[in-house]
Amino acid sequence: MAVEPDARGELPGVDTSGAISTAELQLAARNHGMPLEALAYDITPAGLHYLLIHFDIPVVDAASWRLDVGGLVGRELSLSLDDLRSRPSTTHAVTLECAGNGRARLSPRPISQPWLLEAVGTAEWTGVPLRALLEEAGVDDGAVEVVFRGLDHGVEAGSHQYYERSLVLAEAQRDEVLLAYEMNGRPLLPQHGFPLRLVVPGWYGMTSVKWLDRISLVDEPFEGYQQSHSYRLRQAPGEVGEPLSRMQPRSLMVPPGVPEFATRKRQVEPGPVTVRGRAWSGLAEVARVEVSADGGATWSDAELLPEASRWAWRAWEWAWEARPGTYELCCRATDGAGNVQPLEAPWNLGGYINNEVQRVPVTVSQLDV
Amino acid sequence: MAVEPDARGELPGVDTSGAISTAELQLAARNHGMPLEALAYDITPAGLHYLLIHFDIPVVDAASWRLDVGGLVGRELSLSLDDLRSRPSTTHAVTLECAGNGRARLSPRPISQPWLLEAVGTAEWTGVPLRALLEEAGVDDGAVEVVFRGLDHGVEAGSHQYYERSLVLAEAQRDEVLLAYEMNGRPLLPQHGFPLRLVVPGWYGMTSVKWLDRISLVDEPFEGYQQSHSYRLRQAPGEVGEPLSRMQPRSLMVPPGVPEFATRKRQVEPGPVTVRGRAWSGLAEVARVEVSADGGATWSDAELLPEASRWAWRAWEWAWEARPGTYELCCRATDGAGNVQPLEAPWNLGGYINNEVQRVPVTVSQLDV
Repeated sequence: MAVEPDARGELPGVDTSGAISTAELQLAARNHGMPLEALAYDITPAGLHYLLIHFDIPVVDAASWRLDVGGLVGRELSLSLDDLRSRPSTTHAVTLECAGNGRARLSPRPISQPWLLEAVGTAEWTGVPLRALLEEAGVDDGAVEVVFRGLDHGVEAGSHQYYERSLVLAEAQRDEVLLAYEMNGRPLLPQHGFPLRLVVPGWYGMTSVKWLDRISLVDEPFEGYQQSHSYRLRQAPGEVGEPLSRMQPRSLMVPPGVPEFATRKRQVEPGPVTVRGRAWSGLAEVARVEVSADGGATWSDAELLPEASRWAWRAWEWAWEARPGTYELCCRATDGAGNVQPLEAPWNLGGYINNEVQRVPVTVSQLDV
Repeated sequence: MAVEPDARGELPGVDTSGAISTAELQLAARNHGMPLEALAYDITPAGLHYLLIHFDIPVVDAASWRLDVGGLVGRELSLSLDDLRSRPSTTHAVTLECAGNGRARLSPRPISQPWLLEAVGTAEWTGVPLRALLEEAGVDDGAVEVVFRGLDHGVEAGSHQYYERSLVLAEAQRDEVLLAYEMNGRPLLPQHGFPLRLVVPGWYGMTSVKWLDRISLVDEPFEGYQQSHSYRLRQAPGEVGEPLSRMQPRSLMVPPGVPEFATRKRQVEPGPVTVRGRAWSGLAEVARVEVSADGGATWSDAELLPEASRWAWRAWEWAWEARPGTYELCCRATDGAGNVQPLEAPWNLGGYINNEVQRVPVTVSQLDV
């Protein structure tokens, strides 16, 4: 295996051989994607939502757990889960996607969790608006960012760390940013951040810190590893890079027909087929979804179904008359700000935001049972 | 990539290069394992139990769904979910493990779902004892096997098929074999077989057919693909092979300390460490678990905690005084029938039942935060 080490040491580098290593497989066995047929559900059932966990899933004792709010605040808070549950709550349906979704389709392939296309899910998150807690604590004039610390910890880029991310104050104060203690009407599952997690609608998942135990108001930009080194777009190791934030547009279809077990190649019976999928963008509402049956040579508009929530994916469908032969089905989303999915993968060193159009080869022929 | 095709065509063959293919990665992204830190839970939380799904997850309308019981019976049954729920129910805590667990640790590696160690989970399954339904239908004298068909279908070994497995009558009539409609006190999740699945305690997971829609009593051994070709132990393609049935003994530990993100290498702080894990066998009760800190050169007995259920894994723990240095922790289970985990992987063409001892390299040193 040809792995090129990253001179800054913060990523294991890229692989030019095309083959997946055992280290990547270990990550893939832990961090599971959403099987694409689960795009059929408005709200992703428990256990099918994607998961990306840097370290181990903490086992948290809810009785002794507290959320501490401190730093540049008028008064510090230390809140139990019951304290949080007794406050006014809100529920939002939110689509979360991993910033590394599509990484394993890049060449050379950046070494990290080797996502293909499935690192997405939509849940109904219930909790306390972050803004309400910030108002209760009272934000000092000098505060510029809010730092969120999770209880998950381990070694990354050579040093032991807790998982931490920050938001600038204006983002943290958005109406829809939640401290969530329920997912789909049930207490958070351990792997989704029990007892409390941040949910930042519209952003890639790395900012929605799980197993939250401390919120700190600070007077300068946070320089922790997951903010200033990881989750940045760069072409070469020496660059500072652009930080990741909101999700680029993406559409995915339920692969039609039936799969072959080992290869996942699809076979579709001839006749009318409704191709269904979902599309989302954190940058603006979804404006258009197009579908191609010839690998992107020609495109037709799919029908957008009514929007269920600004922060959740939007359903679409497209009527296809499947005639015997071989096809490559593609779908492509455009958002209201004019962002459109590319036909070619946009490469970067960390393998982030590869939102190239999905391609689903299918054979249309009669099934033999 | 060096892939050797299987002359019988029922498996894609084996890989001698050591590197994982994109086709295997597609399977790994769908079929997720249980992160080993979840061994901490007696009952695996929703979403952390392993999943192995041959085709797509069916979306089943419970209102129109029926379970049909037919073939060599006195009277055919066609039962709704409410019909089943109105019958006397039983709950069993059951450990299920995929027969392919450990496959990706074999060399050469059989091409299929590339499990490392995590294809296991324990749930509380609630449902109707299969025996009660068989008695209600009345089994004819000539019946020798019971065939279970799931609603999941697709192409495998070149032909379109529904997932089907059989049990000989005596196994099907065991007290603890369930038609389960609840998992951990909730309706089955789509990916675990909603609305109904078979649960056969003690056996590898392939026999616990999900999305069950038909049970047939037959007068000769079932010859379907998943019974007579797949899930068999062979050394070479031409062999008929031995069918898989009950789980071989296995023990797994919660990897102690904290992981490095990309490599999952463990670092443990010096001092007393309680190493904890679980052990199970479908062949007999767990009789002994041993732990080694030197890669299997020397072994100590772990303490077995009280058995919670005959069909669920058994907790164990072992006190370790961790001194600075590097170690390879191993654990090994022995069952009451004298079966013991091997130190070397037992190779076979399908990559089944590799229950070699788990090896966890750890470095004991002070963490730097």
